[in-house]
Amino acid sequence: MKIALAQLNYHTGDFAGNTGKIIQAIGEARQAGADLVVFAELAITGYPPRDFLEFDDFIQKSEEAAKEIALHCTEIAAIVGNPSRNTTGRGKPLFNSAWFLSEGAVKQIVNKSLLPNYDVFDEYRYFEPATENSVIEYRGHRLAVTICEDIWNTGEAPLYRQFPLDGLALQHPSIVINIAASPFNYHQDLYRRQVLRENALRYHLPVVYVNHIGAQTELIFDGGSMVCDAGGNVRETLAFFSEEMKVVEVDETWLEAPPAPEVVVPGRIQDIGKVHDALVLGIRDYFRKLGFSKAILGLSGGIDSAVTMALAAEALGPENVRGVMLPSEFSSDHSIADARTLAENLGSPHDLISIEEAYQSFIHTLDPFFRDLPFGLAEENIQARTRAVLLMALSNKFGYILLNTSNKSEAAVGYGTLYGDMCGGLSVLGDVYKTEVYSLARYINRNSEVIPLSSIVKPPSAELRPGQKDSDSLPDYALLDRLLYEYIENRKGPRELEALGFDSALVARVLRMVNSNEWKRYQTPPILRVSTKAFGMGRRMPIAAKYLG
Amino acid sequence: MKIALAQLNYHTGDFAGNTGKIIQAIGEARQAGADLVVFAELAITGYPPRDFLEFDDFIQKSEEAAKEIALHCTEIAAIVGNPSRNTTGRGKPLFNSAWFLSEGAVKQIVNKSLLPNYDVFDEYRYFEPATENSVIEYRGHRLAVTICEDIWNTGEAPLYRQFPLDGLALQHPSIVINIAASPFNYHQDLYRRQVLRENALRYHLPVVYVNHIGAQTELIFDGGSMVCDAGGNVRETLAFFSEEMKVVEVDETWLEAPPAPEVVVPGRIQDIGKVHDALVLGIRDYFRKLGFSKAILGLSGGIDSAVTMALAAEALGPENVRGVMLPSEFSSDHSIADARTLAENLGSPHDLISIEEAYQSFIHTLDPFFRDLPFGLAEENIQARTRAVLLMALSNKFGYILLNTSNKSEAAVGYGTLYGDMCGGLSVLGDVYKTEVYSLARYINRNSEVIPLSSIVKPPSAELRPGQKDSDSLPDYALLDRLLYEYIENRKGPRELEALGFDSALVARVLRMVNSNEWKRYQTPPILRVSTKAFGMGRRMPIAAKYLG
Repeated sequence: MKIALAQLNYHTGDFAGNTGKIIQAIGEARQAGADLVVFAELAITGYPPRDFLEFDDFIQKSEEAAKEIALHCTEIAAIVGNPSRNTTGRGKPLFNSAWFLSEGAVKQIVNKSLLPNYDVFDEYRYFEPATENSVIEYRGHRLAVTICEDIWNTGEAPLYRQFPLDGLALQHPSIVINIAASPFNYHQDLYRRQVLRENALRYHLPVVYVNHIGAQTELIFDGGSMVCDAGGNVRETLAFFSEEMKVVEVDETWLEAPPAPEVVVPGRIQDIGKVHDALVLGIRDYFRKLGFSKAILGLSGGIDSAVTMALAAEALGPENVRGVMLPSEFSSDHSIADARTLAENLGSPHDLISIEEAYQSFIHTLDPFFRDLPFGLAEENIQARTRAVLLMALSNKFGYILLNTSNKSEAAVGYGTLYGDMCGGLSVLGDVYKTEVYSLARYINRNSEVIPLSSIVKPPSAELRPGQKDSDSLPDYALLDRLLYEYIENRKGPRELEALGFDSALVARVLRMVNSNEWKRYQTPPILRVSTKAFGMGRRMPIAAKYLG
Repeated sequence: MKIALAQLNYHTGDFAGNTGKIIQAIGEARQAGADLVVFAELAITGYPPRDFLEFDDFIQKSEEAAKEIALHCTEIAAIVGNPSRNTTGRGKPLFNSAWFLSEGAVKQIVNKSLLPNYDVFDEYRYFEPATENSVIEYRGHRLAVTICEDIWNTGEAPLYRQFPLDGLALQHPSIVINIAASPFNYHQDLYRRQVLRENALRYHLPVVYVNHIGAQTELIFDGGSMVCDAGGNVRETLAFFSEEMKVVEVDETWLEAPPAPEVVVPGRIQDIGKVHDALVLGIRDYFRKLGFSKAILGLSGGIDSAVTMALAAEALGPENVRGVMLPSEFSSDHSIADARTLAENLGSPHDLISIEEAYQSFIHTLDPFFRDLPFGLAEENIQARTRAVLLMALSNKFGYILLNTSNKSEAAVGYGTLYGDMCGGLSVLGDVYKTEVYSLARYINRNSEVIPLSSIVKPPSAELRPGQKDSDSLPDYALLDRLLYEYIENRKGPRELEALGFDSALVARVLRMVNSNEWKRYQTPPILRVSTKAFGMGRRMPIAAKYLG
């Protein structure tokens, strides 16, 4: 059987666009001699559709789209992800389904059994889990169709009581098909291969896996669709971070394949290049899907804004990224020089706007209230907020989206000014720890010095008062980032962190900083997710809690 | 059997505080001769603990607290809500449980079967649903203990396949106990009575219901704990919006009670006084639980800031609420006069700070870029953002929390400036439509004119350009609010809205405004929830979707 894997970039809620793409791919797959073409989970609606699923109009449009697509399934069949209605009268009103389209009609609907509801996932909010399903019989094959999480119930303490393929296996399938919406994080591609291998070996079947590609606000889908033989050996892989269709002949001899070696999944970033590519796609799709083409950002001369600008220049074209230097009396000369060099290296437009006049006018206006109180946080924040007002004014006047340049270490400990440097339509580095921002900078400079070396080597500073350095108020980033990783990604509590060797005073201090800044993070822009635990929809904390870890 | 209902205000994650309160209530209940004292769902942790549940340290602390509480359960038993561990090795690692404490020890643990995961609820994110439970035998009674949602699977299309009390009913219970964390919305108390009545009648049993009181950021728990006889007649009710403990003797004759009349649940606000009380509690608890006592807000002379200030004055004391008038050249004289009158009526401190100097300095700074481009949105936003910088500066310098004054109608259509008037630590009116803000104003003025009549009767205006009125760019609020209610609360799509009689051009225009402003709402403060569908954690929409309803 020849199966086409169609790995496409959908736009959530764009029924006309998604349907058109799917129909075109069906035509191309037919042309290429495929028996069957497989699309990703919830391909017709885009993933995740979130609360649009609660609107009957949205579901009706998705059904109409599926029926229109079915009309094009002649001489070829298609499996397409789409919601379907639960008509039993009990349980949630929808299923998350795979629609089997053949001979111009909807022939069968298979429903998802395991609904991920952790981290960034909310599927049990909308969908009723399936309790049983049937294989799809087609051209002499028996297809065990599963939907993403259905094959992820692995490991020693499985998250669900049910194993959907156990039931399907009793119906003697010949191929497992998995349609997925599995977002990128820096080790997801290896984890995915491990899961496919485990399923192939457990059921002695080849597995065809089709994922989304493209970003939907925070979530970046990296593609990486693939086909494994019954030994779990990868026989074909599709592109990462770009659309692709590939026709694969699933061979009978694949059933005899020897077991593939186990895949080792690392704990931290192994390939900074993938993080780079993910962020570039994340920026590009956010702008494109919102109908914008131009970005603006504040350039401090530091590494965060430099890396953000370089990524944006790659995503949008350097001519579409405008860097603005906004010096104050506390800005050092090298900051302005480094920022200018960066913009020139990229070939991007850049401006210099002093914040001095506006800042001083605030100080003057507030003088009757502040009188002779000492310079402090309020004055530092006025500088950051003055910059934000200027950047947003340019953004409003000329149609830019402001990019946020905060990194994950700062976001974690609340080292940033709300409505100041924490502004922006999109946070590019909010899921990248400071130490990883350096790795990104070195990666960006792999062929030539795009980011000035001095931005990389100088000690980080917010430059909001004379001689300020991040290290005045924060632990060393190498240490801080290790601790934050254990706390945020690995959910280690204070006793476990101390057992890992972290100093107890440091643990108490850092956890207090993280937990007392939930109110700030609540109001920050969406963050492109590249780790296993990003701030935002994947990490949901109380704001007014009295628990500091 | 004498049962004490302990309706307490917990603080999420405050193990010492919550445990202390519970132990004290056990002592008082024993003193009052109670056999059993019942506390709310997840009382020990506070509700909702959200992702703190993923930390082993947090669970360990909750277990230690429960064991400490058990030591105080002598001559009396207690039922306390607390998580418990799933030790079966399959499924999610926790249950949402009721711990039965007696004779100084943990005697039995009953787990929640139905896990709400809609609107503001995320319980399936953390908990494994129970599949079976046993009644608790105690002093000759058989207690069918259920947890909140377990008894809410009612109506013609029940949301869950399972009915937990069906299983427990086979074990011949004598009393149903329900421990709850059921947040306020303006008709929740009636809906609750209806649900209790339905369960009492279906199982012919009295129902003891204990709810939380107190606000946890967005969620306001109104209390209203109660006891019904087997006919569903309410025999005792506890206070709304305040802590209370009451001992109730559940009588054998209650089994013979005639059926209570059906409760009619209205669609919209019936009692604006309850909304008022909920908002006051919401403000008070947000400040108290974050350790703040003083609020600041911008006073425009309009109705939204006036109502916000009056509510805050009631919550925090008028001396702790500082109103700041921030006029520009476009502010009318009556605005300043109305704002001053309000502050004087309340007896609150107030200041006047002109934004003119700072605004002009921005315009001057931007002159090389804006040149002779016409005055527009950018300039309007600079005014709103200049006000925000000044308010945040005072907040930073003197330790205020800034209150946001946007209403739900504005938030819905994006009529507000991000990082400007959309700033604040807490949105007081973000779940109150403009037309309902007027009702609140009239309620606040029920005894005397606190809010100047002219703030109520004048046409709403943002006063960001000469002669501006809300009605220049928005439909009439009475019409707009009706449409928004059907779209947001009732999830009616465009075809259904037209069928309800709304003009199709208006529907298209309003839905486009709502859906194209998700990016703005993403960055706004937490909103006190008083309706059945508030912006924030209860309404999760894609930002970059291409679906305009």
